[in-house]
Amino acid sequence: MEIGMVGLGKMGYQLALNLLDKQHKVIAHDANKEILAKIKTEGVTAADSLGELVQSLTPPRTVWLMLPAGEITETVFTELLSSLENGDRIIDGGNAHYKDSIERGKQCKDKGVYFFDCGTSGGTDGARNGACTMVGGDAAVFKELEPIFNDLTVKNGYLYTGEVGSGHFLKMVHNGIEYGMMQAIGEGFDLLEKSPFSYDYEKVAKVWNNGSVIRSWLMELTENAFSKDSHLDQIRGVMQSSGEGKWTVETALDLQTAAPVITLALMMRYRSLEDDTFTGKVVAALRNEFGGHAVSKK
Amino acid sequence: MEIGMVGLGKMGYQLALNLLDKQHKVIAHDANKEILAKIKTEGVTAADSLGELVQSLTPPRTVWLMLPAGEITETVFTELLSSLENGDRIIDGGNAHYKDSIERGKQCKDKGVYFFDCGTSGGTDGARNGACTMVGGDAAVFKELEPIFNDLTVKNGYLYTGEVGSGHFLKMVHNGIEYGMMQAIGEGFDLLEKSPFSYDYEKVAKVWNNGSVIRSWLMELTENAFSKDSHLDQIRGVMQSSGEGKWTVETALDLQTAAPVITLALMMRYRSLEDDTFTGKVVAALRNEFGGHAVSKK
Amino acid sequence: MEIGMVGLGKMGYQLALNLLDKQHKVIAHDANKEILAKIKTEGVTAADSLGELVQSLTPPRTVWLMLPAGEITETVFTELLSSLENGDRIIDGGNAHYKDSIERGKQCKDKGVYFFDCGTSGGTDGARNGACTMVGGDAAVFKELEPIFNDLTVKNGYLYTGEVGSGHFLKMVHNGIEYGMMQAIGEGFDLLEKSPFSYDYEKVAKVWNNGSVIRSWLMELTENAFSKDSHLDQIRGVMQSSGEGKWTVETALDLQTAAPVITLALMMRYRSLEDDTFTGKVVAALRNEFGGHAVSKK
Amino acid sequence: MEIGMVGLGKMGYQLALNLLDKQHKVIAHDANKEILAKIKTEGVTAADSLGELVQSLTPPRTVWLMLPAGEITETVFTELLSSLENGDRIIDGGNAHYKDSIERGKQCKDKGVYFFDCGTSGGTDGARNGACTMVGGDAAVFKELEPIFNDLTVKNGYLYTGEVGSGHFLKMVHNGIEYGMMQAIGEGFDLLEKSPFSYDYEKVAKVWNNGSVIRSWLMELTENAFSKDSHLDQIRGVMQSSGEGKWTVETALDLQTAAPVITLALMMRYRSLEDDTFTGKVVAALRNEFGGHAVSKK
Repeated sequence: MEIGMVGLGKMGYQLALNLLDKQHKVIAHDANKEILAKIKTEGVTAADSLGELVQSLTPPRTVWLMLPAGEITETVFTELLSSLENGDRIIDGGNAHYKDSIERGKQCKDKGVYFFDCGTSGGTDGARNGACTMVGGDAAVFKELEPIFNDLTVKNGYLYTGEVGSGHFLKMVHNGIEYGMMQAIGEGFDLLEKSPFSYDYEKVAKVWNNGSVIRSWLMELTENAFSKDSHLDQIRGVMQSSGEGKWTVETALDLQTAAPVITLALMMRYRSLEDDTFTGKVVAALRNEFGGHAVSKK
Repeated sequence: MEIGMVGLGKMGYQLALNLLDKQHKVIAHDANKEILAKIKTEGVTAADSLGELVQSLTPPRTVWLMLPAGEITETVFTELLSSLENGDRIIDGGNAHYKDSIERGKQCKDKGVYFFDCGTSGGTDGARNGACTMVGGDAAVFKELEPIFNDLTVKNGYLYTGEVGSGHFLKMVHNGIEYGMMQAIGEGFDLLEKSPFSYDYEKVAKVWNNGSVIRSWLMELTENAFSKDSHLDQIRGVMQSSGEGKWTVETALDLQTAAPVITLALMMRYRSLEDDTFTGKVVAALRNEFGGHAVSKK
Repeated sequence: MEIGMVGLGKMGYQLALNLLDKQHKVIAHDANKEILAKIKTEGVTAADSLGELVQSLTPPRTVWLMLPAGEITETVFTELLSSLENGDRIIDGGNAHYKDSIERGKQCKDKGVYFFDCGTSGGTDGARNGACTMVGGDAAVFKELEPIFNDLTVKNGYLYTGEVGSGHFLKMVHNGIEYGMMQAIGEGFDLLEKSPFSYDYEKVAKVWNNGSVIRSWLMELTENAFSKDSHLDQIRGVMQSSGEGKWTVETALDLQTAAPVITLALMMRYRSLEDDTFTGKVVAALRNEFGGHAVSKK
Repeated sequence: MEIGMVGLGKMGYQLALNLLDKQHKVIAHDANKEILAKIKTEGVTAADSLGELVQSLTPPRTVWLMLPAGEITETVFTELLSSLENGDRIIDGGNAHYKDSIERGKQCKDKGVYFFDCGTSGGTDGARNGACTMVGGDAAVFKELEPIFNDLTVKNGYLYTGEVGSGHFLKMVHNGIEYGMMQAIGEGFDLLEKSPFSYDYEKVAKVWNNGSVIRSWLMELTENAFSKDSHLDQIRGVMQSSGEGKWTVETALDLQTAAPVITLALMMRYRSLEDDTFTGKVVAALRNEFGGHAVSKK
């Protein structure tokens, strides 16, 4: 098929190459001229502007957006939609909030454009060699697009999830689970580190990946990480987050759901951003007030 | 090799058959005569008593204990040790507390017996077809026993972890991580359940198992569970626990480690054992006291 | 002074009487005619409509809104603002979200009206006999209104907190702390309830209120609650919540703040709303899958 | 009455003076000769040894132990018990584990000595001017000792809690609640600190102490702390703990009680002891592995 790919960052670039491998015609655009020039050398057709990309595609057009969630996605989506025609399709493969996707779905519908919210998992390597996608949108048109998802993903690696919004919602929850799993793994190794024993962490991750209950891709990545730096001495334990964990927790609050593990996984990330906390100061000061307990001075 | 297997419950029975498959000579004992008779029909030599089992083995003997942690393990261990000789080996493949294992290691050492604490993961299916083991004990003697572990486990599925105690400690932490992962998965599906969308949970688990970041054996089991009961309508959400999660949290406290995800996973299990809570009554009563908020009457 | 009171619910009714006691002239309005008739018998001037209330007040008018947060507050605020004049003042004494208050402050400013967001604590009893208020808005005009706050509150019971929004923000955080404290108290009594000892909870709360580190108004209320129902046998532990705890947690997420205690206090309230959980079903099913552990059937 | 006071640390010294004020005869002992000399100048009789103290008291003797929990208490208790006689009484006013107290109660009983486990709250100031005590032990003998507790505590500030162990258990839970309350207060001020507003924290604590739902002694101490250092700039947020919070959580585990708020309050204290965490390193490394997310280098 013929696909326009907008956004050639860590994920979009790899997805474009992946589609190319599977004999799709890919016309790509990115605001960054260098990246655009680079992907051209790989055999992808480059479009210098969004308008040029739209012009180059044969109707009904299929455009895959792979952009950072938020303002950039909103801006590009709006510009793109204004230049598309009845019957065209937009797939947002990024990590948009599902409520934004529902809103975009409505805007598309008003213009006769089909909108698909596609959660994409598997990291950059998955994007290149076989990802996992969860897709919401029109069921009949999805059937037409199915070859794309079939080719982009590993076997059994795509799912049509229902109406618009359901794809990004499912991806969001997936990331929430991911937060919980990662923190659980982290806490486990922290216990090993503080234990009276001396473990080889790479070997531990390896044995846990072979036959144990907790074998998982994340544990394989843990093995990889320790194989490169056996004690992670080179890095600091600052845990950034990119939005979907927060959305998951906010959604849990909206749905009145107790999700303590996912929530604490996120909050420990926030905690890791600080060297010292005001909470801690207040508690330390209180202990000093009532019990005369010593405080650590700066 | 020749191995005595003591305890033919869900795990021990399967381990015995697994060893038999790999051409080891297995002499088994269990207090339950029926089970003993049954395993005899499978080709395993049955010993009617612990004494008979010890007598049947050629020194240096290797006896694998596969018993519930606590009193039963302690009783059998004590009786067994009293009848073993210098140079014999005990492998405790059950889920003993690592501190108990260290203590048993000392008792064995006093008598010239080699003690190995072996954490065994992979469930009953793993026990039969390929488990994962983590083994602490004497390094040199472990080399002699290595064929057993190699045969019992999947490829790369065993690890010598160091001194006595390190095997069960590692298995305990493994279970702690398992608690966190399971709760994270549960919370994720709870969010899907309360969402405005209609998901096919079996298909969700399946797609998450193919190419996603959270693909894992536990997610495969989730897929299996939903394949049998698509909405889990037949069961109640009562989450029992069997001790190792608790030990992990207690160890976290002893090591002054913040392990909120593992801990909350355990505490939500405890919460699930109760239909109503006294905590809830107190909070509801307080809301009524200060704000006149209505309470739910019995 | 002369004050218009809009909203005669649990809090507003008591505030009106409180102001009356302190020799203020109170003109009150409520959509509920019965309540309006009732407060008339207490000496408060009743206005049948918002318009009548505004007409009855001498400019510059002071109108206190005491309405449920959300739609009602928004509707009444909009109608009220449209009929007020340059120099008039609105005090929102309810529990509006601080961001809504900031927005309302801007709308007021455009019309020359002074807006004050006033967090009100102390429950219904406090509203009647001496509350605690935290007020954001114009500093100079606050000085003019100060007698109202001085009269409505206990000694030292009001604070000018700065620009518009700061009052409701402070009240929101106050409620977040309240959630944490209440859950801590609840958990404590739950431990006593499950202990091997037999405590008289009313006496426990009483002794804790006299000389202990945790003496507090909430503990006094705990004492009251147990004095009426010594084992809280009459009520169920369903913990409702009215919004501010949720806002506090959402704000913690927005500010990337680890606030696990406040958050878990809220999530345990959500948990208490359910008899059974989907999370629990998934975890129980998983335990059955890998370990053959029994599940509770419906 | 005549009371022997053993242990003149922060709490014991003040208790001795408090008893003296109330016309009791106090004979005190401490291993530290300086402290002993100092308290002599205050009018307390000093005993150079435990034996001398016992000799100085008229049977039936009453000895109050006020020592750090653990080894010191155990050692002194054992020595003391060996020199006491049938009918004598020991009050352990320290923070012993309730299970140790039950054990000590049995040892005392075997010798005809009455043991009382007395939880003491209120800080050093309370010890001097009016504490709060919760006392387990023989009901009839407690009646004889009641004047001591009545004099040591504020009005209504003592409670006979039942059999031996119940006093220290109640005090332990009291401290658990205290942990939760303190963390809730800390988190609240952390949110204020990160808010877009500028609050005067001393004034905030003050207004919250006058008429609000969260007024409490801990909030008064918060006010004090901020009055001395308005932004707590002089101290680090390192939150030490002295054992009872940990015991409370361990007890929650033993009683299969979900106590997330008390538990997280403790775990955040542990987290505050570390500048960086291994958990964080693992999670950061994992994010890098699957998503190419940047890590913070050392």
